[in-house]
Amino acid sequence: MELFSVKLIEQAMIRIAPWVHRTPVLTSVSLDRSAGLDLFFKAENFQKTGSFKARGASNAVFRLLEQSKVKNVAVPGIVTHSSGNHGQAVAYAAKCAGLPCCVVVPSDTPDIKCQAIQGYEAELVHCYPSPTGRKETAAQIEQDKRYHLVHPFDDYAVMAGQGTIALELLQQVPDLDAILVPIGGGGMIAGIAVAVKAIKPECKVYAVEPIGKDLGPCLAAKARGWPDPPQFLHTIADSIRTQQTGHLTFPILCSLVESGVFTVSDHQMLEGMSLALTRMKVVVEAASGAAVFAAVHQLKEVDQSVKRAGVILCGGNTGFTPLPQMKLDNNGLLPEAQ
Amino acid sequence: MELFSVKLIEQAMIRIAPWVHRTPVLTSVSLDRSAGLDLFFKAENFQKTGSFKARGASNAVFRLLEQSKVKNVAVPGIVTHSSGNHGQAVAYAAKCAGLPCCVVVPSDTPDIKCQAIQGYEAELVHCYPSPTGRKETAAQIEQDKRYHLVHPFDDYAVMAGQGTIALELLQQVPDLDAILVPIGGGGMIAGIAVAVKAIKPECKVYAVEPIGKDLGPCLAAKARGWPDPPQFLHTIADSIRTQQTGHLTFPILCSLVESGVFTVSDHQMLEGMSLALTRMKVVVEAASGAAVFAAVHQLKEVDQSVKRAGVILCGGNTGFTPLPQMKLDNNGLLPEAQ
Repeated sequence: MELFSVKLIEQAMIRIAPWVHRTPVLTSVSLDRSAGLDLFFKAENFQKTGSFKARGASNAVFRLLEQSKVKNVAVPGIVTHSSGNHGQAVAYAAKCAGLPCCVVVPSDTPDIKCQAIQGYEAELVHCYPSPTGRKETAAQIEQDKRYHLVHPFDDYAVMAGQGTIALELLQQVPDLDAILVPIGGGGMIAGIAVAVKAIKPECKVYAVEPIGKDLGPCLAAKARGWPDPPQFLHTIADSIRTQQTGHLTFPILCSLVESGVFTVSDHQMLEGMSLALTRMKVVVEAASGAAVFAAVHQLKEVDQSVKRAGVILCGGNTGFTPLPQMKLDNNGLLPEAQ
Repeated sequence: MELFSVKLIEQAMIRIAPWVHRTPVLTSVSLDRSAGLDLFFKAENFQKTGSFKARGASNAVFRLLEQSKVKNVAVPGIVTHSSGNHGQAVAYAAKCAGLPCCVVVPSDTPDIKCQAIQGYEAELVHCYPSPTGRKETAAQIEQDKRYHLVHPFDDYAVMAGQGTIALELLQQVPDLDAILVPIGGGGMIAGIAVAVKAIKPECKVYAVEPIGKDLGPCLAAKARGWPDPPQFLHTIADSIRTQQTGHLTFPILCSLVESGVFTVSDHQMLEGMSLALTRMKVVVEAASGAAVFAAVHQLKEVDQSVKRAGVILCGGNTGFTPLPQMKLDNNGLLPEAQ
């Protein structure tokens, strides 16, 4: 843990300021009433590239660029493996930095996600659709092209970038009792936990996970008890379907994150998304829907000491919404029957 | 027109400040690129009650209360006819003012809209589903209960409240060349036009209408050439389906609004809603989708002098979205096939 501290997060805050938004905090009288406490939603769905991942990716890429200038060596390029938010974010950061970028995506990645990555001018490289396939292909590019790998979560520069969410949130709403954070590999919650415990140690940091992750037992045993090779969970929350947390993130979680974990089903995530859509008029992805659901329907029962909670709306990149769809006739008009 | 001036709008701004939000202005690099100009979206979808209507309703209700105090008479209550945004807004304003409220809604109004109005503690009165049915039932309540009618648009206090949108927007973005405003009865655009022409006369005010409204020919002829009795248009934009503009609003439109009108189909509104959802991560209703579509796909071609345009996202109350819907299996999980 000596390698990672709030100082890195404070440096990241300055480094990434030109490239990311200071996102707003949303509130809703009607959700507060449903939850029975005051909720403060950090709207990273409005972040550049549509998710918080722009923070970690920008910090990692621009830190590399700074280091290369000090050493007077060139950065040949950036590589990562992610079909989703991290892939877009690294492509965006590399474009901002003027560096070539390869993003390794599974061969079954939908066109719309590929286009989003290519929109930031990155080169797409397809691989066998498994966690291992992604890693091996990215490692090959690292070796062949001498590109620098920016890992989705197990990298202190990435964690430091994500931790800036908490620095901002605690500036915007200083007196929080707890923060709820959706968890995949654990980069965001590790960064947030380090920032929170340095600034406001009495504020609790809670993880919100999809069913099947089983983070609670791992935290209780302080052991990464997940099956190998790493697997993807079967969940609609595609941005947090990695079952295992990282080798660097897990020890941080064990020491700084509450051992009680909020576990949310796909249906509950959809309900959370729907609450965000109908009550706050914002689009959030399923992982954010999980945090909304936990905050509104689970938090008060689990921890009655919490009166004011932050909720991280981690992203807004979703191909679907839980609202009914309108059917139009061939002229694009509402059918007479309705 | 002597009865209505920017002074009423400035007074409204002060009167309604405790009851409405100063809504943010959203921007999107990617929508600016698509539009070929700089767009500034006034996010009334985040307004109290989910639409700009809270402004006009609050101004009308609290002005009544002020006048009644001066005259030392009681206000028995408030009545209006609207199943939609105006109905919710009047119910909200009456609740804030501590006044009883009746909202007349067509007998075929969906439960969800009735619940929204009842959520603000108003009494619902059902009527025959036609513009005439609504008016007659409301007039009966005016007479029987001596309640005050707050008309959805043909009322200077309501127009003044809606005009505060423009005062705010021009404070937030002073150098606009044009503002695009969805139009139903014309209360919002009349208020906005009066405010804009008083503060920044060179800024154009454009109306955005659903197909079938035919505002352009009426403006050209300076005559309310619509068929009687008034009808509802066949459009998904339920908040602007009134075909006729008002007797008080129409003369203001003739003198202050551009004669070129943007006409938008239901399909195009859905595209506009989808642009708002995917690029800005916000939920807007179909009328707002119309303005987004006109700004992104029509404005540059119609008026090349416009470089910076305001776009009014008038509301976010929608029962549907144009995004594909996710199907889940009986356990609430994503089917294996996907």
